[in-house]
Amino acid sequence: MISDNLLKQIAFIKEIDKVKYIQRKTKLFNSDRNENDAEHSWHLAIMAVVLAEHSNENIDVLKVVKMLLIHDIVEIDAGDTFIYDTQKNHTNTDEERLAANRIFGLLPKAQAEELIEIWEEFEAGETKEAKFAKSMDRLEPLLQNTSNNGGTWAEFGVDYDKVYNKKKVIKDGSEVIWDYAENLINESVEKGILKKI
Amino acid sequence: MISDNLLKQIAFIKEIDKVKYIQRKTKLFNSDRNENDAEHSWHLAIMAVVLAEHSNENIDVLKVVKMLLIHDIVEIDAGDTFIYDTQKNHTNTDEERLAANRIFGLLPKAQAEELIEIWEEFEAGETKEAKFAKSMDRLEPLLQNTSNNGGTWAEFGVDYDKVYNKKKVIKDGSEVIWDYAENLINESVEKGILKKI
Repeated sequence: MISDNLLKQIAFIKEIDKVKYIQRKTKLFNSDRNENDAEHSWHLAIMAVVLAEHSNENIDVLKVVKMLLIHDIVEIDAGDTFIYDTQKNHTNTDEERLAANRIFGLLPKAQAEELIEIWEEFEAGETKEAKFAKSMDRLEPLLQNTSNNGGTWAEFGVDYDKVYNKKKVIKDGSEVIWDYAENLINESVEKGILKKI
Repeated sequence: MISDNLLKQIAFIKEIDKVKYIQRKTKLFNSDRNENDAEHSWHLAIMAVVLAEHSNENIDVLKVVKMLLIHDIVEIDAGDTFIYDTQKNHTNTDEERLAANRIFGLLPKAQAEELIEIWEEFEAGETKEAKFAKSMDRLEPLLQNTSNNGGTWAEFGVDYDKVYNKKKVIKDGSEVIWDYAENLINESVEKGILKKI
């Protein structure tokens, strides 16, 4: 007799394979190739492991890693929304909540509830773990865009103010990383790869 | 003043982007598209989170997740070796050890040592965490191949005995998952997508 929990977990494991097909706007480092959500989530999870010492507060690293591994799974149904899209709110849409219920709902009940709660916590961005996870999610595309001569900033005409406003939440997760990030944003303006109007 | 540790960590974060270009032999679920090492590592890390309850022994899930996130980073230098390759030993080659020293060596010293140790522990496969991590690494391609009418088994003429011998280590990590996996292997023979000579 195969455990009922295991069969549900296998169904979930198969379903989330679709995350590998979801293309982000951002390109890989020094590259023209779009990143997909699975690659992005893997990168953020390692970043959290490696950068945890810089968190403003002492964090539960496993919880942060779980958040980052699952944070884009809802995009299987809801699709990727570009962070600088002015037509559509990036987070917490009803569509994303429905997606979370359907996809995590493939898991055994208690586990589904746990992962939906972790996803909601990430989206709300209020706990120390969510703040640090969000700072990872903001840092990666900043590193990518600077390696790609402005990347999506140049491609979609995003200026300094918009970038600064989206990136400054890094500070809520890590003052140390924000110092680095702010410096990188200013350097990008000096290099002419980010427009300051 | 930007922290010296942070600069080293950023160099590492940029370097490991290359993992996204390393193609595995195995294809995505119900697909013709090869999986890359970053996608594979992401999937295994979530599988470990979701399936941890089935481990034979009580495990440190964060340690398992770290192992799985980093286990293929050495392939940046050493390349992916197909598990059924008879010419080349899959694990613990000198080439891989050199790669680990170079790539993890980009990190601050103590952190580099920690991750090399975790990688060596995974490769050795002797601790309870390494055994469970290895069982994830064996399970994912089994699920993929069965979803792809035999996938790499059919493509490279791998038979039941070879598959069984490679997969049976799943049992060292989880008896429950092995029951499921063994059943899946037998079903594959019955369906004619895995040859038993």
